[in-house]
Amino acid sequence: HKRPHHSVGIIGAPFSKGQRKDGVEKGPDLIRNAGLVEKLKAQGCTVRDYGNLKFEDPADDHPVGKVQRPRTVGLANEQLAKAINTIKKDGHTSLMLGGDHSLAIGSIHGHAASQKDLRVVWVDAHADINTPLSSYTGNIHGQPLSYLIKELRPKMTALPGFSWVTPCLSAADVVFIGLRDVDPAERYILKLVGIKAFSMTEVDRLGIAKVMEETCDHIFSRGKKPVHLSYDIDALDPSVAPATGTPVVGGLTYREGIYITERLCQTDLLSAVDLVEVNPKQGKTESEVSSTVNSAVDVILGCFGRVREGSFPAGYTLPQP
Amino acid sequence: HKRPHHSVGIIGAPFSKGQRKDGVEKGPDLIRNAGLVEKLKAQGCTVRDYGNLKFEDPADDHPVGKVQRPRTVGLANEQLAKAINTIKKDGHTSLMLGGDHSLAIGSIHGHAASQKDLRVVWVDAHADINTPLSSYTGNIHGQPLSYLIKELRPKMTALPGFSWVTPCLSAADVVFIGLRDVDPAERYILKLVGIKAFSMTEVDRLGIAKVMEETCDHIFSRGKKPVHLSYDIDALDPSVAPATGTPVVGGLTYREGIYITERLCQTDLLSAVDLVEVNPKQGKTESEVSSTVNSAVDVILGCFGRVREGSFPAGYTLPQP
Amino acid sequence: HKRPHHSVGIIGAPFSKGQRKDGVEKGPDLIRNAGLVEKLKAQGCTVRDYGNLKFEDPADDHPVGKVQRPRTVGLANEQLAKAINTIKKDGHTSLMLGGDHSLAIGSIHGHAASQKDLRVVWVDAHADINTPLSSYTGNIHGQPLSYLIKELRPKMTALPGFSWVTPCLSAADVVFIGLRDVDPAERYILKLVGIKAFSMTEVDRLGIAKVMEETCDHIFSRGKKPVHLSYDIDALDPSVAPATGTPVVGGLTYREGIYITERLCQTDLLSAVDLVEVNPKQGKTESEVSSTVNSAVDVILGCFGRVREGSFPAGYTLPQP
Ligand SMILES: [Mn+2]
Ligand SMILES: [Mn+2]
Ligand SMILES: [Mn+2]
Ligand SMILES: [Mn+2]
Ligand SMILES: [Mn+2]
Ligand SMILES: [Mn+2]
Repeated sequence: HKRPHHSVGIIGAPFSKGQRKDGVEKGPDLIRNAGLVEKLKAQGCTVRDYGNLKFEDPADDHPVGKVQRPRTVGLANEQLAKAINTIKKDGHTSLMLGGDHSLAIGSIHGHAASQKDLRVVWVDAHADINTPLSSYTGNIHGQPLSYLIKELRPKMTALPGFSWVTPCLSAADVVFIGLRDVDPAERYILKLVGIKAFSMTEVDRLGIAKVMEETCDHIFSRGKKPVHLSYDIDALDPSVAPATGTPVVGGLTYREGIYITERLCQTDLLSAVDLVEVNPKQGKTESEVSSTVNSAVDVILGCFGRVREGSFPAGYTLPQP
Repeated sequence: HKRPHHSVGIIGAPFSKGQRKDGVEKGPDLIRNAGLVEKLKAQGCTVRDYGNLKFEDPADDHPVGKVQRPRTVGLANEQLAKAINTIKKDGHTSLMLGGDHSLAIGSIHGHAASQKDLRVVWVDAHADINTPLSSYTGNIHGQPLSYLIKELRPKMTALPGFSWVTPCLSAADVVFIGLRDVDPAERYILKLVGIKAFSMTEVDRLGIAKVMEETCDHIFSRGKKPVHLSYDIDALDPSVAPATGTPVVGGLTYREGIYITERLCQTDLLSAVDLVEVNPKQGKTESEVSSTVNSAVDVILGCFGRVREGSFPAGYTLPQP
Repeated sequence: HKRPHHSVGIIGAPFSKGQRKDGVEKGPDLIRNAGLVEKLKAQGCTVRDYGNLKFEDPADDHPVGKVQRPRTVGLANEQLAKAINTIKKDGHTSLMLGGDHSLAIGSIHGHAASQKDLRVVWVDAHADINTPLSSYTGNIHGQPLSYLIKELRPKMTALPGFSWVTPCLSAADVVFIGLRDVDPAERYILKLVGIKAFSMTEVDRLGIAKVMEETCDHIFSRGKKPVHLSYDIDALDPSVAPATGTPVVGGLTYREGIYITERLCQTDLLSAVDLVEVNPKQGKTESEVSSTVNSAVDVILGCFGRVREGSFPAGYTLPQP
């Protein structure tokens, strides 16, 4: 019942070049304008907003193989990694507002620089683990984990813009929740390196509570370590979060999406959060946009102490007659 | 399979002064016009409709502290308590059609007058247990349980219009289902007096079937007693029941909402039912209103014997060739 | 992870005379036009499309008792039974695209002609087991199982058009999933002959995973036998599949609907599939129609090897640097 205290460092990453759809760069400000900071404070958080990163467009960023805009994506993530590292050194739980999911490269890399031996919970309809060579689309937002996982190094090629990246995760450090649109290459990779994945089939079979218990068992089986939650809003069902670039039917309910955050918050080990892929231009109506943004805000609030049963601050007293 | 018989006494309470939004006084007739009585009869119930109460507006009903319209709400509930008491004396299961949830004061009080040692199942997004002093809004529909629970007496102040009320419930007699928007004061109170609550987090964790088993275990742990079900339509998700004054995302599904009624009906101890907070003016479209009203009707039908597996009357025979 | 191979024989049955609403005869082509064959091939299936049946209108098909168009329905099903029998002899899993659910008579009868000792999983909001004498509406799409179940013979009357039909199922061979609108006569019959049924109440109580385990236990308790899945799209919730003749609130979610197919596919015993009751004229908007058709396609894909966790073909290799 009593609220633990959270200190949140927010960094906005208005970046869209890890995929081809306009609009996802508007995510950070949309989420802020829905009252994020006020709501975090109202539930007892300390909040420092580090503002939005400013990204550059490297000249002549031609594709390498199929990979689109490698220099732009690499540079943006290098900037983001530094910003996250600063937030962590300042003692906050980092909250990165995307932007597209390619930003997880920088967010996780920056987090790993200050907290070695991370665990990653990746909530997404997609596995985002294509290698630059296996990707059909060439969009780096479908590849971030391939840059970060040590066991995949032999399958990777050097790309301009990514020389600063060293894989910082082991396959055993990662858990997926919400998968339902997985490429053959991605499924092959998950099996090859052995990554724990709860697809929607497992969510249906086990229920979200059991999924979260097994998730926590898995990530803490080799010790209690800081957790990085990388939350793609497209993990939620399109009826809840339609305004996103690659919606897929049959997603997590709002309640399941929130339950995940409540359970991870309860571990007291949540150390960094990404909230990505909110794209207002993909909403067909204003109500589709606001439903998506409000869901994103509620996901974040759940990460930082909001519980549906209610809570009261330490020292609360009831008004007496 | 075979249908038990239910005798239902309906009282309409077109009352809206326990909150500030116009329209909730239309609930009783809307629910009737959706065919309630015919449908109850078709499923084998005996039905007596006691019509709608007529409420008075006491002169000069100025706020007391923050509390709005105490004399009006108090008097309306006094009338309702008498009506419910009559229905119970006539041998029916009472069905109160609201109106706002402040009416639970009169409905439960009237029920308790004829059936001591009640149990209450309160299905709601909200806990409705603020004291007159802790309430932010001053709306009495957010306070009814504080008037009824013995353990809260020391926290209450005398209010004009409520001199007829004596707390008739113990904290252990009440179970909440569906909570997801609970004020700090309310959470503090639930903990202070120890009320069993299944918030949406528990519904997610346990599933509705386990929630109902634990609910029945709890309310019958000190003996089989008559059950008062106070059902706020806002317990259901706004996608199902949008036409209500204070909708909250992440609610019960239609199926969960119905399951609750099927399970309570099965106890054969359902002795009074409130169905409150249907407000057609809060529906944005006709279809939002009809979905809300139809859900309310189905909730009621589930209380009085409807089962989704189907049923046949005693003595049924199949047409023979 | 590795894909098993499926050989699918598709037969379209653009038939609507088992009920009174226009439009359901458009189902087969709508489902095909949503890319069914291409998608089946993309997931590794061999597909042969046997095209659409052409149905005749027997002259003077006056009602027999209440039963509407018995000669037309009987003859159409006789044609369909032959077509299914051919597809089975050709070595395929049959896929019948309806049309209304009266077509299950021919589809199951034709299947039984080539594979004795079938099991039937009937996924539907309705039990479709009225006898010609118990039916209120006289629509044969509400009666197909009564023609097929041996134990019901004493309750049946001879009908013109049905002399070719011999009951080929035992009551113990059938499992229902999704029931929520069951006539008194139907509930009486289910109890009389003892058919296993998971109504929505059981789906709520047990969860879809347990329902499917119990379904498989039941149908395979007397040996592993070929399975006929008869899938009425109205089993799904109207929010997912609104474009159907008799939608009923409180249905299966998209995810539950897909889980059923994934689990049955896993048995490697799925031998025939019906997908019926998609009716575009019952959709209020284009989006209602496409949602219904897309759900139907996904149900079918799940029957033939699609899994949400992803899969890769035998012999798949990852592109190497
Ligand atoms: Mn992603
Ligand atoms: Mn995604
Ligand atoms: Mn409420
Ligand atoms: Mn209420
Ligand atoms: Mn049906
Ligand atoms: Mn059917």
